[in-house]
Amino acid sequence: MANVNKVKTIAVLTGGGDAPGLNAVIRAVVRTALGQGLKVWGIKNGFGGMVENQMIEMTDSSVAGILPRGGTILGTTNRDNPFHYPKKQDSQIVYENMSAQALCNLRERDIEAIVVIGGDGSLKIASEFYHLGLPVVAVPKTIDNDIPGTERTFGFDTAVGVATDALDRLHTTAESHHRVMVLEVMGRYAGWIALHAGMAGGADCILLPEIPFAIDSVVAKIKEREARGRLFSLVVIAEGAYPQGGEQSVSLIVEGSHEKVRLGGAGEKLAREIEKLTGVESRCTVLGHVQRGGTPTAFDRVLSTRYGVAAAKCIFDGAFGNMVALRKNQIIRVPIDEIAGKAHNVTADDELLQAGRAIGICFGD
Amino acid sequence: MANVNKVKTIAVLTGGGDAPGLNAVIRAVVRTALGQGLKVWGIKNGFGGMVENQMIEMTDSSVAGILPRGGTILGTTNRDNPFHYPKKQDSQIVYENMSAQALCNLRERDIEAIVVIGGDGSLKIASEFYHLGLPVVAVPKTIDNDIPGTERTFGFDTAVGVATDALDRLHTTAESHHRVMVLEVMGRYAGWIALHAGMAGGADCILLPEIPFAIDSVVAKIKEREARGRLFSLVVIAEGAYPQGGEQSVSLIVEGSHEKVRLGGAGEKLAREIEKLTGVESRCTVLGHVQRGGTPTAFDRVLSTRYGVAAAKCIFDGAFGNMVALRKNQIIRVPIDEIAGKAHNVTADDELLQAGRAIGICFGD
Amino acid sequence: MANVNKVKTIAVLTGGGDAPGLNAVIRAVVRTALGQGLKVWGIKNGFGGMVENQMIEMTDSSVAGILPRGGTILGTTNRDNPFHYPKKQDSQIVYENMSAQALCNLRERDIEAIVVIGGDGSLKIASEFYHLGLPVVAVPKTIDNDIPGTERTFGFDTAVGVATDALDRLHTTAESHHRVMVLEVMGRYAGWIALHAGMAGGADCILLPEIPFAIDSVVAKIKEREARGRLFSLVVIAEGAYPQGGEQSVSLIVEGSHEKVRLGGAGEKLAREIEKLTGVESRCTVLGHVQRGGTPTAFDRVLSTRYGVAAAKCIFDGAFGNMVALRKNQIIRVPIDEIAGKAHNVTADDELLQAGRAIGICFGD
Amino acid sequence: MANVNKVKTIAVLTGGGDAPGLNAVIRAVVRTALGQGLKVWGIKNGFGGMVENQMIEMTDSSVAGILPRGGTILGTTNRDNPFHYPKKQDSQIVYENMSAQALCNLRERDIEAIVVIGGDGSLKIASEFYHLGLPVVAVPKTIDNDIPGTERTFGFDTAVGVATDALDRLHTTAESHHRVMVLEVMGRYAGWIALHAGMAGGADCILLPEIPFAIDSVVAKIKEREARGRLFSLVVIAEGAYPQGGEQSVSLIVEGSHEKVRLGGAGEKLAREIEKLTGVESRCTVLGHVQRGGTPTAFDRVLSTRYGVAAAKCIFDGAFGNMVALRKNQIIRVPIDEIAGKAHNVTADDELLQAGRAIGICFGD
Repeated sequence: MANVNKVKTIAVLTGGGDAPGLNAVIRAVVRTALGQGLKVWGIKNGFGGMVENQMIEMTDSSVAGILPRGGTILGTTNRDNPFHYPKKQDSQIVYENMSAQALCNLRERDIEAIVVIGGDGSLKIASEFYHLGLPVVAVPKTIDNDIPGTERTFGFDTAVGVATDALDRLHTTAESHHRVMVLEVMGRYAGWIALHAGMAGGADCILLPEIPFAIDSVVAKIKEREARGRLFSLVVIAEGAYPQGGEQSVSLIVEGSHEKVRLGGAGEKLAREIEKLTGVESRCTVLGHVQRGGTPTAFDRVLSTRYGVAAAKCIFDGAFGNMVALRKNQIIRVPIDEIAGKAHNVTADDELLQAGRAIGICFGD
Repeated sequence: MANVNKVKTIAVLTGGGDAPGLNAVIRAVVRTALGQGLKVWGIKNGFGGMVENQMIEMTDSSVAGILPRGGTILGTTNRDNPFHYPKKQDSQIVYENMSAQALCNLRERDIEAIVVIGGDGSLKIASEFYHLGLPVVAVPKTIDNDIPGTERTFGFDTAVGVATDALDRLHTTAESHHRVMVLEVMGRYAGWIALHAGMAGGADCILLPEIPFAIDSVVAKIKEREARGRLFSLVVIAEGAYPQGGEQSVSLIVEGSHEKVRLGGAGEKLAREIEKLTGVESRCTVLGHVQRGGTPTAFDRVLSTRYGVAAAKCIFDGAFGNMVALRKNQIIRVPIDEIAGKAHNVTADDELLQAGRAIGICFGD
Repeated sequence: MANVNKVKTIAVLTGGGDAPGLNAVIRAVVRTALGQGLKVWGIKNGFGGMVENQMIEMTDSSVAGILPRGGTILGTTNRDNPFHYPKKQDSQIVYENMSAQALCNLRERDIEAIVVIGGDGSLKIASEFYHLGLPVVAVPKTIDNDIPGTERTFGFDTAVGVATDALDRLHTTAESHHRVMVLEVMGRYAGWIALHAGMAGGADCILLPEIPFAIDSVVAKIKEREARGRLFSLVVIAEGAYPQGGEQSVSLIVEGSHEKVRLGGAGEKLAREIEKLTGVESRCTVLGHVQRGGTPTAFDRVLSTRYGVAAAKCIFDGAFGNMVALRKNQIIRVPIDEIAGKAHNVTADDELLQAGRAIGICFGD
Repeated sequence: MANVNKVKTIAVLTGGGDAPGLNAVIRAVVRTALGQGLKVWGIKNGFGGMVENQMIEMTDSSVAGILPRGGTILGTTNRDNPFHYPKKQDSQIVYENMSAQALCNLRERDIEAIVVIGGDGSLKIASEFYHLGLPVVAVPKTIDNDIPGTERTFGFDTAVGVATDALDRLHTTAESHHRVMVLEVMGRYAGWIALHAGMAGGADCILLPEIPFAIDSVVAKIKEREARGRLFSLVVIAEGAYPQGGEQSVSLIVEGSHEKVRLGGAGEKLAREIEKLTGVESRCTVLGHVQRGGTPTAFDRVLSTRYGVAAAKCIFDGAFGNMVALRKNQIIRVPIDEIAGKAHNVTADDELLQAGRAIGICFGD
C-alpha cells in the first residue's frame, strides 16, 4: 500500500441523500489515510461546504464509534452545486459558478485530493472538478442501487432489510384479515429495492419501473390465490412503477439547476384500483424515508468499509478520476467518465427476476 | 383455580383489527382451559364465524409455536356484526339480525361460554350477547391503547416499538440533511402511541388528538432549535390530531352499522405547512399498518399471556360479563357494561405528558 | 414545578454495571434541570470521579442524540467506593476513606445536590453520603429488576427483549433438530429476567434462584412433551438457579470491600445432566453481557425519562434522601433508607408465575 | 426452463445443522418444481428419513408462510448416515449400510431425483448416492461459509448479523466500563463469521483459525488504544482460533462414523489471559446456537431462493451430480466431486482481511 505519489493531505465529503453506511465509509477512508501518515479534512455539508469553506480536521477520535450510526457526521445536502451555486440576492435566488472559490478553499489547506461519497448528482460534480484538474476518487452511494458500473451500492442492503421487515409485519395482518396489502418502496427509475424486498418478504406481485404493469395481471394473480384458498395477497410496488399505456406518475419541477421530483402515490392508487376490481379490502403503506436512515446492516457496514479502504488506496496509487465499484463480487476501479449517462436497471434476463417468475411471482406483465 | 361452575366447553374468537399478541392470548386461553380438562373451540373470522358456523377444535398442537407470530390463527374481521349482519340479496346488501343463529351454532357444540378478544366494536357485540344470556369474558385489544377500564392493551407496546424504530431511522436522516421529519402514527381519538413513541424516539414536537395544536407553536419550536444550532427537528403526529380552530380531518362514512373512517393525511398536511412557514425542507412518513402486525415485543407477549390466563380463570370462577384489565399494574376484572360509552384518553395531568413538557417537548399548545 | 429550595447547581453520576437507559435518565435529569435554570455537572466514572474530581459541565448539547444509545456518556465503574477507596501504595492496594475529599470537590463547584443513578451498591454509598448531609436523590438501576421498593427498574425490559430474541432463534433450531436448548440468563438472586423472557419466548421450563429445582421435574417435563410428539424443549435458567439440596454455584471472593461473584455455569451443567438423563442432545447458550448493553427498548426509554424527570423534581421540591420508584404503575418517592437490606424477588404468589403454571410451564418444583 | 429429461417426481431433504434460510430453499425448490408440473416429496429428518421411509407430499400450502421462518419444516439431523446407519441391538449401537433400503424407499414412490440441502457431511453422502446412480442436486448450507466452490452459503449473512448485533451491545458496555469484551463466534476451521462480524461490529482484534495468534500482539493493541485514551477494546475470536505454538483447543471424539467436536472455550481462556496481562477487566460472551436459528436476513432469504430455484432447474436440465454455488456473484453449477476434500478458508490475500489491516485491526499476528 505504498503511497507512490506522495499525496500528503486529502479531504472527504458526503453528498446527496442519506444512505446507511456513509459514516462507515468516512471512517474507513480516514483510518486508512491516517494509517499512512496523511492529513485528512472533512468537508461539511457536501459540496456546499467546499464553497463555504466549512472544513474540520479528521482525527482518529473524529471517527470513533461512528461505524454503526446512520446519517453522516459530515452533514450532507442534495442541493448545492458549486458550478451553479444558489445565492440570495434581493430576496431572489440567483445562480453563480463558485467552483474556483471551492478549489481555492482546498488549496489554502494544501488539500491535494478529495474523496467524494455520493450518488448520481455528486458524481457529476466530481467529474467536472476532476476535469478541472482536481484529483478525485468517488464512492458510489444510493440506497436504490441504480448507479452504473457497480453491482451493489452501500445502503441498499439496509433499505431492503427495512422493507422486508415491513412486509413481514404486513403479512400477518393481511393473512388474518384477508386483505391485499400494498407496500410502496423507494425506486424512481430502478426497481432493485422492490425486487429484492419483494422476494425476501414473500410478495405475490412485484411491480417495477422497468416493467409497466397490466392491472389485469395483478388482479388475476390475486384471484388465482383466492381460488386456492389464499384469501390475502402482498404487493410490492416501486414508487416509480406505472401501468402499461400510462406513464410514470412523476412531475419534474426544475428549479434552478435542481429538479424536484414528486411522485404521485403509485401505491395508494394501486390499492384503490385493486379494491375496486377484486372487492377485497386493500391498504397501502408508503415506507418513505424510513428506508434511508438508521444503523446499517452488517453487510452494508462491511461493504462501506471495503469501499472506504479502496478509495484511500486509489489515492495512494494516484488512481484518480475513478469510482470504486463492486463487480463480480470484487472491488474494482471504474473511470467516473465511463458511467456518465448510463443507467443500472433490472433487465429482463436478470437472474433474480427469473427466479421470481419460477416461483410464481407476478411482475405485472 | 377450581372450575366451580363446571363449564365443560368454551369457545374463543378474535374480532376487529389485527394487533400483535392475539395469538399469545389464544394460546394462553387454550392451554389454561385444556389444563383444567375443558374442551375448547376456536371460532374463525370473528363474529362472522359464529354466524356462519365456522369453528375448529383447539388442541395443544393447534397453539404450538404461535406465541411469537403476529396476526391471529383464527382469522378476524372488523365488519361482521351478528345483530346487523350483511347479506347479499339481488346484488344488494341488506342487514339482518343473525344473533339467534349464532347462539344456536354454539349450543349445537355445547359451548357454554366464550372468550372474546377484541376492541371497541367487538366489546359492544360481546355485551349484547351477554345480555341475551351468553356467558362472555372479554380481553381488551387495540394497539391504540384507548379502551377504557385498562391501563394497557396488548399490541400497544409493539406498535410503539415499531414507531420508535422508525423515529431512530428518521433521526439520522433529519440530522444529516437539516430537515424536519414528520412521522404520522396511528391514533384516531387517542394519542397514546404518539406520546410514547415520541418520548422514546426523541421527538421535538408531539401532536395528539387530545390537544388541538397551534402551528405557530410548532414553528416556534423548530426555530428555537435552529437558533441553538440544531438544524433539524422530529415531529410525531397522531393521525387524528388537528389544528386549533380546525377539526379532525376525518370523514365518517356510515355504511350499514359500520362506520368507515378515512383520515385526511394529517402528517402530510403538517409537513407542507412547516416547510412553507420555516423554509426548512420537511418530509412526512406514514407508518400505517406496519404498526399493527408482526411479532409482538416480549412485553406484549407477557401481557397477552397474563390476559389469556386471566380470561380462562374468569370462566372457571363463573365471573362472566367481565373484561380482564390491567390497573395499577395488576390484572383485574371490569364489568363490560361499565366501560360502555367511556373513553381512555391522554389527559392534561398525565404524568408522561408532563414529563415531556419538563424536558422541553412541544405539544403544540 | 417550582424550585422551592432554590438549589442552583446539581451534579449527576452513574454507578455500577451498565444498563440500557442510563443515557436516557441523564438526558432527562439534565434537560429538566436546565429548563428550570439550574447548572448541572456530570461526574465521570461513578463515585470514583467524585473522589478524583473528574466533572464536566452538562449543557443541552452534551445530551443531544444520546437517548437511543446504550452505555453511559459519563462512564461508570462498579469498583470505587469513596468510603473505602482503593489506593496503590508500594505496589499494594490499600483502602482509605476519601468521602471528605469527594464532598470537598462538590463544594468547590457549588454543587448543592446530586442525582445518583445506580444499583444496590451505589444506593448504599448514596445513603451514606446523605447521612453526612449531602442532598441526594437516587434512580434505581439494574437489569435484574431486583431493587426493592420499585416494581420495575430501567434496563430490565431491554434485557428481557434480548433474551426473548435469543429464545426465538433457539426455538427454531431446537424444533428442527429435536434438541433441548438451555438458555442461561442473568439473575443471581432474582429470577425476573428468566421468568419474563421464559414466558415471552415460550420456554417449557423456567428455573429461578427463588425455586430450587428438582432435575427430575425438568426431565419429566421433557419426556411428557416427547410423549406428545414434541421432540424438543426450551429451558431458561437464571445464572443463580440451583438444584434442590444443592446450593447456588456461586463463589464469593471478598476483595477489599468488593465482592467478586463468579457463578459456576449453571446452564452448562444443567444441559449435560439433561442429556445424560433423557438421551436427548442438549445445548447451552450463555447470553452474558449482551443483555446489558445496546439501545434500550421504547419501554425502557420512556421509563428512564420518567425517572429522570422525577429525580429532578425531587430536587426542586427539596425531597432529598429519596429514590424515585415505580409502584402500581405510578412514579413515587421512596426513602432510600427504607429499602436497605431488603430484597425484591419472585414470590410464590406472583401473578405471572402462576400464569406460567396455568399454561403448563415447569418451574422445577 | 424446459424439463428436458422429463423427471416427474422429486424429493427434497435437509441435512446437518440448522441454518437460517433452509425453509426458503425448500419453498423455492417446491414452488419451482410444482410450477413445472412435477410431484415433490419432502423427506423428513435428513437422510435418516430416507432410511426410515418418512416422507410427505409437498404442496403449495406445505410451503406457505415458511419463507421468514428459521429452522426447517422437514426436520434435520446431523447424525444419520445411510451408509453407516446406527441401529440398536441388545442395548448396543451397531452400524449397518442401509443405503439400498433408502434407495428402495425412493423407488417405491417413483422419486427420480433428489435435492439435498446440506453441509459438508451431507454433501459427502449425496456424492456417494450419486455414484450409486441416484440423480442428485446439492445446495450448500452452513452458517460458517466454509464450503468450497461457493463464495457464499446461505445462513452466513444472518449469523454475521446476529454476531454484529451482539458486538453493538457489548460495545456500549465496554466503553462505559473501560473493559475488554471478548465475543466468541462460530467457526471451527474457517474464520469467515469472525472476520465479517468483527469488521461490521468495529472490533479492535479479530482472531481466526487461519492465523494462529500471538497474545502479545493482542495485548499490544489494547495498550496502544489505552495510550490514545480509548480505555476499552472489543475482541472477536472464532471458536477454532488458537495461539501460536499452541493447537486448536479441540477434542475430536470419533463415535461410529460421527466425529464429535468439543471446543475448549477459546474465548473464555483469552479473556482471562488478557485480564492477567493488561490489568483491564475482561469478559467473554459465547453466542453459540443463537447464531444458527431464527428468521433469516433479507439477503439470506434472497440467496436461498436463488439456490432453490437453481437446484430445481438443474433437475429440469438433467444436470445431476452438481452443487449450485455462487461465484463472482452469479449462480453456477459445480460438480460435487470437485469440492471433495477441499477447504474454503480466509487467505492471507483476502481483500476484506487486508481492508481490516488497512484500518488498523489487529489479527493477532
